[in-house]
Amino acid sequence: MSVTTNRVVLQQGEYAGTLRKTSVSHIGLRVPDVDASVHFYGRVLGLVLQGDLDGGGARLGWGAGHHVLDLIPGETGIDHYAFEVRDDDGLVGIRSRLEAAGHAVANLDTSYLDGSVGVGSGISVSDPDGTTVHFHSPIWRQGENVADTGRRPVKFQHTTVGTAAVQPMVDFFASTVGFRLSDQLEDGRFCWLRSDKDHHTLAVVNVERTGVLDHYSYDLSEWEDFKTWCDRLTELDVKVQWGPGRHGPGNNLFVFFDDPAGNHIELSAEMEKFYDDAVHYSTRRWLPVPASVNLWGGQTPTWRKTSEGTV
Amino acid sequence: MSVTTNRVVLQQGEYAGTLRKTSVSHIGLRVPDVDASVHFYGRVLGLVLQGDLDGGGARLGWGAGHHVLDLIPGETGIDHYAFEVRDDDGLVGIRSRLEAAGHAVANLDTSYLDGSVGVGSGISVSDPDGTTVHFHSPIWRQGENVADTGRRPVKFQHTTVGTAAVQPMVDFFASTVGFRLSDQLEDGRFCWLRSDKDHHTLAVVNVERTGVLDHYSYDLSEWEDFKTWCDRLTELDVKVQWGPGRHGPGNNLFVFFDDPAGNHIELSAEMEKFYDDAVHYSTRRWLPVPASVNLWGGQTPTWRKTSEGTV
Amino acid sequence: MSVTTNRVVLQQGEYAGTLRKTSVSHIGLRVPDVDASVHFYGRVLGLVLQGDLDGGGARLGWGAGHHVLDLIPGETGIDHYAFEVRDDDGLVGIRSRLEAAGHAVANLDTSYLDGSVGVGSGISVSDPDGTTVHFHSPIWRQGENVADTGRRPVKFQHTTVGTAAVQPMVDFFASTVGFRLSDQLEDGRFCWLRSDKDHHTLAVVNVERTGVLDHYSYDLSEWEDFKTWCDRLTELDVKVQWGPGRHGPGNNLFVFFDDPAGNHIELSAEMEKFYDDAVHYSTRRWLPVPASVNLWGGQTPTWRKTSEGTV
Amino acid sequence: MSVTTNRVVLQQGEYAGTLRKTSVSHIGLRVPDVDASVHFYGRVLGLVLQGDLDGGGARLGWGAGHHVLDLIPGETGIDHYAFEVRDDDGLVGIRSRLEAAGHAVANLDTSYLDGSVGVGSGISVSDPDGTTVHFHSPIWRQGENVADTGRRPVKFQHTTVGTAAVQPMVDFFASTVGFRLSDQLEDGRFCWLRSDKDHHTLAVVNVERTGVLDHYSYDLSEWEDFKTWCDRLTELDVKVQWGPGRHGPGNNLFVFFDDPAGNHIELSAEMEKFYDDAVHYSTRRWLPVPASVNLWGGQTPTWRKTSEGTV
Amino acid sequence: MSVTTNRVVLQQGEYAGTLRKTSVSHIGLRVPDVDASVHFYGRVLGLVLQGDLDGGGARLGWGAGHHVLDLIPGETGIDHYAFEVRDDDGLVGIRSRLEAAGHAVANLDTSYLDGSVGVGSGISVSDPDGTTVHFHSPIWRQGENVADTGRRPVKFQHTTVGTAAVQPMVDFFASTVGFRLSDQLEDGRFCWLRSDKDHHTLAVVNVERTGVLDHYSYDLSEWEDFKTWCDRLTELDVKVQWGPGRHGPGNNLFVFFDDPAGNHIELSAEMEKFYDDAVHYSTRRWLPVPASVNLWGGQTPTWRKTSEGTV
Amino acid sequence: MSVTTNRVVLQQGEYAGTLRKTSVSHIGLRVPDVDASVHFYGRVLGLVLQGDLDGGGARLGWGAGHHVLDLIPGETGIDHYAFEVRDDDGLVGIRSRLEAAGHAVANLDTSYLDGSVGVGSGISVSDPDGTTVHFHSPIWRQGENVADTGRRPVKFQHTTVGTAAVQPMVDFFASTVGFRLSDQLEDGRFCWLRSDKDHHTLAVVNVERTGVLDHYSYDLSEWEDFKTWCDRLTELDVKVQWGPGRHGPGNNLFVFFDDPAGNHIELSAEMEKFYDDAVHYSTRRWLPVPASVNLWGGQTPTWRKTSEGTV
Repeated sequence: MSVTTNRVVLQQGEYAGTLRKTSVSHIGLRVPDVDASVHFYGRVLGLVLQGDLDGGGARLGWGAGHHVLDLIPGETGIDHYAFEVRDDDGLVGIRSRLEAAGHAVANLDTSYLDGSVGVGSGISVSDPDGTTVHFHSPIWRQGENVADTGRRPVKFQHTTVGTAAVQPMVDFFASTVGFRLSDQLEDGRFCWLRSDKDHHTLAVVNVERTGVLDHYSYDLSEWEDFKTWCDRLTELDVKVQWGPGRHGPGNNLFVFFDDPAGNHIELSAEMEKFYDDAVHYSTRRWLPVPASVNLWGGQTPTWRKTSEGTV
Repeated sequence: MSVTTNRVVLQQGEYAGTLRKTSVSHIGLRVPDVDASVHFYGRVLGLVLQGDLDGGGARLGWGAGHHVLDLIPGETGIDHYAFEVRDDDGLVGIRSRLEAAGHAVANLDTSYLDGSVGVGSGISVSDPDGTTVHFHSPIWRQGENVADTGRRPVKFQHTTVGTAAVQPMVDFFASTVGFRLSDQLEDGRFCWLRSDKDHHTLAVVNVERTGVLDHYSYDLSEWEDFKTWCDRLTELDVKVQWGPGRHGPGNNLFVFFDDPAGNHIELSAEMEKFYDDAVHYSTRRWLPVPASVNLWGGQTPTWRKTSEGTV
Repeated sequence: MSVTTNRVVLQQGEYAGTLRKTSVSHIGLRVPDVDASVHFYGRVLGLVLQGDLDGGGARLGWGAGHHVLDLIPGETGIDHYAFEVRDDDGLVGIRSRLEAAGHAVANLDTSYLDGSVGVGSGISVSDPDGTTVHFHSPIWRQGENVADTGRRPVKFQHTTVGTAAVQPMVDFFASTVGFRLSDQLEDGRFCWLRSDKDHHTLAVVNVERTGVLDHYSYDLSEWEDFKTWCDRLTELDVKVQWGPGRHGPGNNLFVFFDDPAGNHIELSAEMEKFYDDAVHYSTRRWLPVPASVNLWGGQTPTWRKTSEGTV
Repeated sequence: MSVTTNRVVLQQGEYAGTLRKTSVSHIGLRVPDVDASVHFYGRVLGLVLQGDLDGGGARLGWGAGHHVLDLIPGETGIDHYAFEVRDDDGLVGIRSRLEAAGHAVANLDTSYLDGSVGVGSGISVSDPDGTTVHFHSPIWRQGENVADTGRRPVKFQHTTVGTAAVQPMVDFFASTVGFRLSDQLEDGRFCWLRSDKDHHTLAVVNVERTGVLDHYSYDLSEWEDFKTWCDRLTELDVKVQWGPGRHGPGNNLFVFFDDPAGNHIELSAEMEKFYDDAVHYSTRRWLPVPASVNLWGGQTPTWRKTSEGTV
Repeated sequence: MSVTTNRVVLQQGEYAGTLRKTSVSHIGLRVPDVDASVHFYGRVLGLVLQGDLDGGGARLGWGAGHHVLDLIPGETGIDHYAFEVRDDDGLVGIRSRLEAAGHAVANLDTSYLDGSVGVGSGISVSDPDGTTVHFHSPIWRQGENVADTGRRPVKFQHTTVGTAAVQPMVDFFASTVGFRLSDQLEDGRFCWLRSDKDHHTLAVVNVERTGVLDHYSYDLSEWEDFKTWCDRLTELDVKVQWGPGRHGPGNNLFVFFDDPAGNHIELSAEMEKFYDDAVHYSTRRWLPVPASVNLWGGQTPTWRKTSEGTV
Repeated sequence: MSVTTNRVVLQQGEYAGTLRKTSVSHIGLRVPDVDASVHFYGRVLGLVLQGDLDGGGARLGWGAGHHVLDLIPGETGIDHYAFEVRDDDGLVGIRSRLEAAGHAVANLDTSYLDGSVGVGSGISVSDPDGTTVHFHSPIWRQGENVADTGRRPVKFQHTTVGTAAVQPMVDFFASTVGFRLSDQLEDGRFCWLRSDKDHHTLAVVNVERTGVLDHYSYDLSEWEDFKTWCDRLTELDVKVQWGPGRHGPGNNLFVFFDDPAGNHIELSAEMEKFYDDAVHYSTRRWLPVPASVNLWGGQTPTWRKTSEGTV
């Protein structure tokens, strides 16, 4: 293959790996038609309407505990994304490191902590692309996350942001906040960061736009669920956009489809686990070829490009 | 075999197949002992008491969203059965076709729409046997219908009405309301009608009585559940009445047992799907023999007769 | 229920339970059309033709090791049934106890030991009904018995003989040979005997005829296989005769169908295990009602009667 | 093995087996740090906070219906344990037999019956070790017990109490209350009692202390869940303490881990069922060796001793 | 969509549906490198070398019984394809209908019947494209076809031939030989024919070349196998070419990959069954759009075209 | 924890990673009682006697293709272990690198290549402990390795040798032969080497003796098999020695038991895969604590020590 790929090794600073019990908690999406999206998430994903938001938005969750999704009227886009910090003194550390690095940190409006364990608190900050990020104390995750609860999504698992500049996002999340790089593509245009035992709770991909949602992901229990979900999506006239397949980075099974606003939703299972308390890892570097993002074959969806088109 | 079977081809008019996103939503049963039935449906089926009805009845559901079952004190019988219409302009079309055909249509008392998506509406009409039928706008189906949720029933799946006159019921549901015939027995005494991708959401069987419930059915996720359910029913001193087996029409796995009022309840899985947007089907005609209703063997329960007793 | 049931406690003598590593090994059936039966066992059960027998018979097995089935031309009936004795000095003990009890014991023709482990030996004796029984040394059980090998039958599991006199058969197998009673029906007309960790490797049922095969049984791995098998039998135009269900005695899942000669074949799974080296058991006594032979419901096949027809 | 074991046959009186539809309903534990335990049971077991108790305690359940667990501030210990009596006239009979045997019986404070079916009632009594036991009328068991609901615990399944004196506990529960002995170890130091179709809803073990909780147990649906749970516990930094394995008495699969207060929690599946309406059983007696409590091998956890250390 | 599709209803004559117990038995492929293909089919598919063919070819099967695959040195192409006829008098009927229709029929060289049941016989004829077709008497299908045997392919399931002229192939196989149309695309360029209970044992597709193999297919047991196979193919550096997905016609799950000669191999499961003895079917007509060949989404592989590119 | 662990980073030279399609093929064990071991491997593992060896030994395999196990009379120990090299020119390269490093290389006696693909060849060399190692050309692996074949072992998966000196073994296998380090314990006393996509095909552990077999391992298909195998081993009176559990290095599920000669046999599933063609990995270093070898908990069997006894 004659394509020349730039080799870019993404850098992470001394605080990388500070966080080990931090996971995604909720996401806020702007959508042009809130009602249509509410109906879609209710019928297709099984999310439950938990309340209205000021300005015509809607809040959804799994029926109990903390919410998962805020739908806000507007042009399709990402409004904010959030992480639950269960590390001891994790929130204090994030705040001090962010402030030391010159970021403006605000207290999180506690209306976002509707399912707080005890008295909750949190902070709000802008990521390098200007998108709002929340970090907050533990929440009740009833409905999701209670071991595997059948064929329903088990949990909201990760957010993948699209950006025009990957390294500044890595500086922010790994070097300052305390995430750690699990994998990257060798051209530095895609990386996966972890903050608990999952291979990634956040990924960053170069899409030549800035501050966008590439996709976000829910966990399923097992491979058997993928047939059930593909059949069910077909029954509901929702087309599969990519997969089923298996990713190289994270080794997880996947299938993708879109919500009515065009957001890409991933269902995932079998994600690789990292045991940082017991073992030393180095960031792995994958060839930027289609086979890296689908080990079973080189198919990629229309919205995903790699530096090198073939393997 | 010397039995002569009448060949009866059931007719459906021009509106047949108009509905493609319409499914069962709730059923109202009259039972002599409401408390006993409430206890049974709570412990055996996992339904939750959602409220009391005027006159001593009880309303049950899956714990959130629209109810599934109204239990009304009285002699065992069917009080009403209902469909959720998600077709665009489906409800308007049903009403106009019913009225054009001379049926008296009333607005549905909105107390039946306890889990309406947005502002709900509906209509009420008598079927040819005089039983009340509801058609209404979309409802929240939380608890059921959220992909497959473990070994619990996935959803209320179909109603089978018993009648002395099958063709008038087909005229009503297929030619006027907009259902479509998927299968029939060749003697015309049993037919299965669809209104979404499931092989049937309604079936009609000749039982030489009129306006009765033959049985109704809940979906399970998979075959594995049938062992769990048969063992669990045994643990609860509820006898299996028929099956496990596999039906010819619909190709679904089944097992039957009775509620305390003697209503036959079916648990079902693997029902055949129809893709009317992509393919043209003709109604299939099955021999009226026991093997058609149980492909695995000719056993039939005491309450089910076929024109030809053996195959 | 007005039926009066005799209470009969079957007796077993001092040698009961001597055998703990003895299991069924092969069975010889007389069938009117050997070719039809060979074809049936090949296509339906997956048995392999291992060779011809003198006089027009055929020998079948799982493709390697000891055979499972001899098909001998003649009127439908049982020619012989056999047990593999892996107990230390088990064969010597059986012979001496049989001879002490006055039974004529012959050396087994070694042509029956086609898959012997090392130099095989065995004995032949008539059971109280005059049917030939073999006991022999260990054999290679390749193909079967290698843990669970997919959806194929795992092993030949037990033989159930029909007799006009149950107690003499118990005297023979339990008091003399060294089997042990696991369960009986309370009227003494059906009993199950074990000779290894399985609940039974032999059962005896009163059928008012003598020296007949009631049925014989193959093990499947798990419940999932029952759907595969019922569907596959249907595809091959073989009707299920009874089940799927779950027996009381043995607690095993079951389904029955017939071979071309009319022999009843059972497929079974989840049979209860006994750990006689660690625990003392007493024979259990079941009510002679349909629900004892099918815990899930009272259905019985046409050929099975119980003293009390209902429960 | 040269160890001499005392043979002790535990005795049960005439009322043994009176109860056939009685099961565990809730348990009250004293824990030093209620918040830590609430967080643990919420995140690990999926229990939901249902309300606060007077004095700083917390009540947890499966999200609907009757509660499962009361956490009460104090030194680690068992405060009370409770049974739901669904036998006809069961509660009246228990009370009269207890009073006839000289036990002081009080009416149960109805605040314990938060999910009563209809108007609930119950009684409270001290067991021979002085621990409070509740018996009460039927409750709503929503969330648990609705067939098998995925990988979540299916139900609270049994309580095992530790005592310095086993026979008095057997006298109390079997001879007076109406439970029945399913199994015992041959030295009489461990026994398992049933009150419905499960092999045991209560076990009693000699631990040379008195009035303590040995462990308590939740049901899982199936073996597949054990991998999910062991992986999930590892993800949550909760160590497995024993298993996976399979018990001799009850034949159930098991795995054990501890809550933050050091209570041993068992997850269990495939427990043996008893059909007392159809069959007569005798209590089985197991050798007091490690292999009896783990059929797959002799490993025992640090807190479990048997009279004979090896098999 | 502005594409105009020709509506072509494929015709089948009076003998259509004569065959009901006829299935594929073997296929002969010409490949440029026999050794490479033998190694591939041995390691990837698990086929076993059964012998050499004259002229440098190789014969492979499942290890016992009739062979599945002949590999013949030459330019990549199909040499012959064959069917096992188990219908009573089926072979005689096929021969007489073929001869009546003017086809030259030869006796099949019995070297092709290496695993014949009894004394085998067969015929050889050219299909309308000039490719050799075999029809022969029953064969031993050991290794394959023995219920479902784990994750190995269960059986060779169908052949799909590519042709420049579909209707003549339908005339040959349906109107003369006795197959029957199950489904067709509405433009008449793809059709599926059955000869036993499977939805198709043969398919014909318009590829604007003549006498070629479009693909051929092996059955897997279940969806779970698809993950195992995709992972295993990846481990063996064999790329998935299409899927996993679900076909409209036949409703079967599928995944495709290529052998070293570039032949497309399909693995399939859950194919729809037809019960012609019990029910009357009409041929269904599917829209010629990508979603018909993959219900889960419109992806098609590079070698598959439909008349209408989008749905 | 006050234990001081030496940090030892094992070194691998320039040829490390040369091999990518090399896997274990057979093993030769010396056992005191060949007959007992043959019987054990036949009944428990399902291996088939393929022939006798000179001097009283026996050769076993899966029934077809290359053998798996040679049993040689003698004091318990490892006689030789072997690898199949499928890398292009792999065997030539191994030989030249071994000779360049001064090792004496002999041609392998072709009697060891009983299931060679084409004309086989191989070499024989002593490992640093003096144990014979074979490397040879591709073999037929029928019976094993045909995707996953049910509950039987899928393949012979790896050999773990015990040695007094780990680094020389790593020099031999990684720096010279061309394996690569996947994982090591941080004290350098245990390491895992790969030669294909599996995490390891060879492991080396410091046991303070030299030239011994630590254990060897067979693959199972999936977790479900572990229950079947533990139950089956119990039925055959074979005790589980360790597990079920999950290893840190390799992330595989495991269970261990012993053969009659005392060799430790592992059954394994879900081993991590490496995709060296697509991604750059670094050797990971695990803490030498019990939790590293069993992620689910710290239990270790009697024969396994770690530098640090607790975590």
